[in-house]
Amino acid sequence: MIDFITLCDYVGTFAFAISGIRLASAKKFDWFGAYVVGVVTAVGGGTIRDILLNATPFWMTQPSYMVISGLALLFVLVFRKYVIRLNNTFFIFDAVGLGLFAIVGIAKSIEFGFPFWVAIVMGTITGAFGGMMRDILINEEPLIFRKDIYALACVFGGLVYYGCDCMGVPLPLTQFIAAVAVFMARVLAVKYHVSLPALKGEE
Amino acid sequence: MIDFITLCDYVGTFAFAISGIRLASAKKFDWFGAYVVGVVTAVGGGTIRDILLNATPFWMTQPSYMVISGLALLFVLVFRKYVIRLNNTFFIFDAVGLGLFAIVGIAKSIEFGFPFWVAIVMGTITGAFGGMMRDILINEEPLIFRKDIYALACVFGGLVYYGCDCMGVPLPLTQFIAAVAVFMARVLAVKYHVSLPALKGEE
Amino acid sequence: MIDFITLCDYVGTFAFAISGIRLASAKKFDWFGAYVVGVVTAVGGGTIRDILLNATPFWMTQPSYMVISGLALLFVLVFRKYVIRLNNTFFIFDAVGLGLFAIVGIAKSIEFGFPFWVAIVMGTITGAFGGMMRDILINEEPLIFRKDIYALACVFGGLVYYGCDCMGVPLPLTQFIAAVAVFMARVLAVKYHVSLPALKGEE
Repeated sequence: MIDFITLCDYVGTFAFAISGIRLASAKKFDWFGAYVVGVVTAVGGGTIRDILLNATPFWMTQPSYMVISGLALLFVLVFRKYVIRLNNTFFIFDAVGLGLFAIVGIAKSIEFGFPFWVAIVMGTITGAFGGMMRDILINEEPLIFRKDIYALACVFGGLVYYGCDCMGVPLPLTQFIAAVAVFMARVLAVKYHVSLPALKGEE
Repeated sequence: MIDFITLCDYVGTFAFAISGIRLASAKKFDWFGAYVVGVVTAVGGGTIRDILLNATPFWMTQPSYMVISGLALLFVLVFRKYVIRLNNTFFIFDAVGLGLFAIVGIAKSIEFGFPFWVAIVMGTITGAFGGMMRDILINEEPLIFRKDIYALACVFGGLVYYGCDCMGVPLPLTQFIAAVAVFMARVLAVKYHVSLPALKGEE
Repeated sequence: MIDFITLCDYVGTFAFAISGIRLASAKKFDWFGAYVVGVVTAVGGGTIRDILLNATPFWMTQPSYMVISGLALLFVLVFRKYVIRLNNTFFIFDAVGLGLFAIVGIAKSIEFGFPFWVAIVMGTITGAFGGMMRDILINEEPLIFRKDIYALACVFGGLVYYGCDCMGVPLPLTQFIAAVAVFMARVLAVKYHVSLPALKGEE
């Protein structure tokens, strides 16, 4: 039986891959191209984190992430007509993934001996850079830098993590609270249309 | 005297660099910019592979790849008017490079102790991600995800490699067969207009 | 008290971050997105260098670069209306950064035991690839490959470094001369509109 954290990890991977595959399909990528975009969206952030930490990229130690991305492709192929109705479900899955990925990024960086500010940066990279790489691949301006609270939810979760840690909250509880903080920040920001102002140009 | 494998390596590098330089020239990049795009196309895939494997990037241990990319720039500068007539030749050179690069990526990954499925991913990255980085640099949607069989030929060659390996075929022969498999898959797919279907959007 | 080299480093980081933030603002990125683009512009080149050298990315060992990029964001937010008048100042700051970054890249590569030609490539990557990543993020064709002498000034500075080194010039003086060479090459090229010819397409 897989535990709760692994389940969240797989749910997040699935949702991230789906988002890559759907955007690739809008650009008429072929099946394999869409699969690659899905994989990059799902594992891209964690891969950049692991390269920066000088760790073996996490997806190279077990095939689950490739397999789940393959299932995501299959899902889009088979349920193409109904996928759009599941937008809300995917949004929740994606937010679950964002929360988990951010916390995994923070925990791994601390484990590797880096200070907290590096860990928060790594949590944000883990959560947000997969989507950024997706948008580079499909040749669009990264959406995560222009719409809603996304990367910033990871930073917020990192600060919550740090706060709990300072107050001596036990690690598993700290991580749970921080993941929920990312999830809630993301969900509430979208629900109440909270977003950062755009930086005005100079004109 | 250089051996046959080194010759294929150089021929492939030359063809990959030419493709980068030609596409950069269509975007009015200057000479040096075109050279950089050529180098990235030629060595980009293998560099990502080496970073993921935590190996020293292959082109940093000998200057051949920079020099060959420089020759490719010179070639395009001098024979500009005739380059287009050599399209078929470049296509063959490119397919030779694809086959060799994919097999080098597989062999190196296995040497580094990774399982076969990682090696096949690395072979595909080695063969196809240089072209992907080229298209990102010239700000186009990656062509290799939308046209003909390209990255998938590397996956196919990887499966052939694995099959031969399982059947106890001697390593040099396995590698030769697998490289030819990539080459043939690529050439036949283009000749007979075989391609993966595009993933249909949701609309 | 910070020394002269550290001051140049900070001035360069500030100018690079400003250039990223300004271009992001022209694309309506939000504050945090603009900050990320600023950080990537400022530390992107050195990060790629460190990944290739298999060193810990320099910005992960001290928070200055994140802080300076934050100050750059604040500066653009507060002085938005006057930023454009400071174009010449930013240009000089940027050229100072280019010179320093290129020389830091060269020195670090030699320290890691690589030959001079690798060091020159690394100097160019350190100086020029931050701007390249900036242009990829904002979805534009990299400007540094199409306008003025930019990356090539780093190559020139690298050759000057090599020349001084061969002639037995003491290291600190060599580095100063090479940094000034990059700075002057960049400034004079812009002042006298010197640029490489565009590579003509085939057509």
